[in-house]
Amino acid sequence: MLSEFSLIDRYFARRAKAPSPRQGDAPLGIGDDCALIAPPAGHQLAISTDMLVAGRHFFADVDARALGHKALAVNLSDLAAMGAKPHAFTLALALPHADEAWLEAFSDGMFALAERFDCALVGGDTTSGPLNICITVFGDVAHASALRRDAAKPGDDIYVSGTLGDARAGLGVMRGEWRAPDEAASAWKRALEKPEPRVALGLALGGVAHAALDISDGLAGDLMHILRRSAVSATVDADAVPCSDAVRALPEAARRQCALAGGDDYELCFTAPRNARDSIARIGERVGVALTRIGTIESGAPGIAWRDGSGAALSLTLQGFDHFHAD
Amino acid sequence: MLSEFSLIDRYFARRAKAPSPRQGDAPLGIGDDCALIAPPAGHQLAISTDMLVAGRHFFADVDARALGHKALAVNLSDLAAMGAKPHAFTLALALPHADEAWLEAFSDGMFALAERFDCALVGGDTTSGPLNICITVFGDVAHASALRRDAAKPGDDIYVSGTLGDARAGLGVMRGEWRAPDEAASAWKRALEKPEPRVALGLALGGVAHAALDISDGLAGDLMHILRRSAVSATVDADAVPCSDAVRALPEAARRQCALAGGDDYELCFTAPRNARDSIARIGERVGVALTRIGTIESGAPGIAWRDGSGAALSLTLQGFDHFHAD
Repeated sequence: MLSEFSLIDRYFARRAKAPSPRQGDAPLGIGDDCALIAPPAGHQLAISTDMLVAGRHFFADVDARALGHKALAVNLSDLAAMGAKPHAFTLALALPHADEAWLEAFSDGMFALAERFDCALVGGDTTSGPLNICITVFGDVAHASALRRDAAKPGDDIYVSGTLGDARAGLGVMRGEWRAPDEAASAWKRALEKPEPRVALGLALGGVAHAALDISDGLAGDLMHILRRSAVSATVDADAVPCSDAVRALPEAARRQCALAGGDDYELCFTAPRNARDSIARIGERVGVALTRIGTIESGAPGIAWRDGSGAALSLTLQGFDHFHAD
Repeated sequence: MLSEFSLIDRYFARRAKAPSPRQGDAPLGIGDDCALIAPPAGHQLAISTDMLVAGRHFFADVDARALGHKALAVNLSDLAAMGAKPHAFTLALALPHADEAWLEAFSDGMFALAERFDCALVGGDTTSGPLNICITVFGDVAHASALRRDAAKPGDDIYVSGTLGDARAGLGVMRGEWRAPDEAASAWKRALEKPEPRVALGLALGGVAHAALDISDGLAGDLMHILRRSAVSATVDADAVPCSDAVRALPEAARRQCALAGGDDYELCFTAPRNARDSIARIGERVGVALTRIGTIESGAPGIAWRDGSGAALSLTLQGFDHFHAD
């Protein structure tokens, strides 16, 4: 197996590179015991790691190019949620066998996204084993700009970016839970398989927003992370949560399940003070991402009071963790 | 599965902590989208990632406490080989099911080692799936002190730390390739399962040694990494390679295979100029690790000329990559 896995190493190594040079940085990438990187002066490294397992986080027969994209995208999304600028990543990969066509497509999808964000592969590990992808990503964030989960304040507005529910709606089609016109089903599948990390938005929100995270497990569950860590509560207008027309066309229960509890959208949820409304609107225009105000942070024990568009209380039965992950 | 894997998250989170505070560092650990760390001024972060797969890197029934130790130890060893001081690590873990006794033992082994080196768990990911352990480790290294693989110079002495071959000898007993007295077999098994990362040695060698790496795949193959990256050759006295008495008692072919091509020892191999011999000797005494001079770096195309103790050329047939890894 030596030659086979050496080939895989070389496969990635030939597209790896040292990170963009910068002051105080003498980068050392693939081929030594460690990669060496340093954040710019006054910055920290934001670090996130995600492990993707076949059959849990993706279907084993998923398009390899899309998988390469998604494996890195979910990590870049964590950087975006922190307001950090992508810099470098490591890839650890277990593969049952070396399939050149698969590797070509997987690495194409991964490097296409990496290059868009100037994020260099600086190290890694490959081995034989059940398919498993573990990426650790490194970004730069200025000390004062980090978007932490524990920074929400009573009176803050709550926003989400883009539209929610498309990825979950796509999963529903694949599972046979509901059907949709071809065009909608294609768009949903794309949302599920090729999420767009909101990097520019996260960077722009630094110093403006208070708390932020990316919605990987569904709005209801993820917002609760902010509420618990910030020791605050929230009121959310369920009808204000932005959805695509196709998701809006689903029956009400399915629509709410997708929009409020569906995972894998990788949009940002963030809070910001009322006096930042104009700034937030300008940021949304500048980065070209719709930003929708869906509720407010209040003092009180962590919990979400759901309202409908008329302001009436809603009693929702949501599965809190309803996405591709089975765990 | 939610509750089960939330339990696992909490299992590790309760023993996680923010990294040791230091100037310019506002650490943020488990519970946010990212961990935030920064090296001290004038330093870089050394980063290494290793993925361990059941059946490839360890026997599926290995003692969980030893596995927790080894999973972190192999990563700390990469930091040692770079001359970096351990600071933090992330753990991504796929488990077929949540077995509390296994988790207790695994995390005990891992945290016992982490605490010895003041290395904080700052983030991670847990999921269900075939057993897979991916650790990414972060250490601090001063710009001028990094021990790179490409820094060997003609005229350098070549050293190794400790003794080589014990881990491979232990694997041989488990595989039934050879037998040994109980005491030797126990010591070998310990060497295989609980390697000691040479962190203090790596730190002490910064600014003194030229090139270094840790011997994970066997001396012959690993030394070639230094030779290729430094564009130099080496002459090595095979009989000078330090072995335990028990390995020395093996038949010659087995002994040479273990000492020269056996992996998983995690000792350091490094080069240093002749005028550093006294410094190297003092470092060995100070950190309490035997350091043995085994050869010299020469100009010429990358390759190893093996000699025996009398200086006569040896023609060795070594499997280059002979350790637990099957890949």
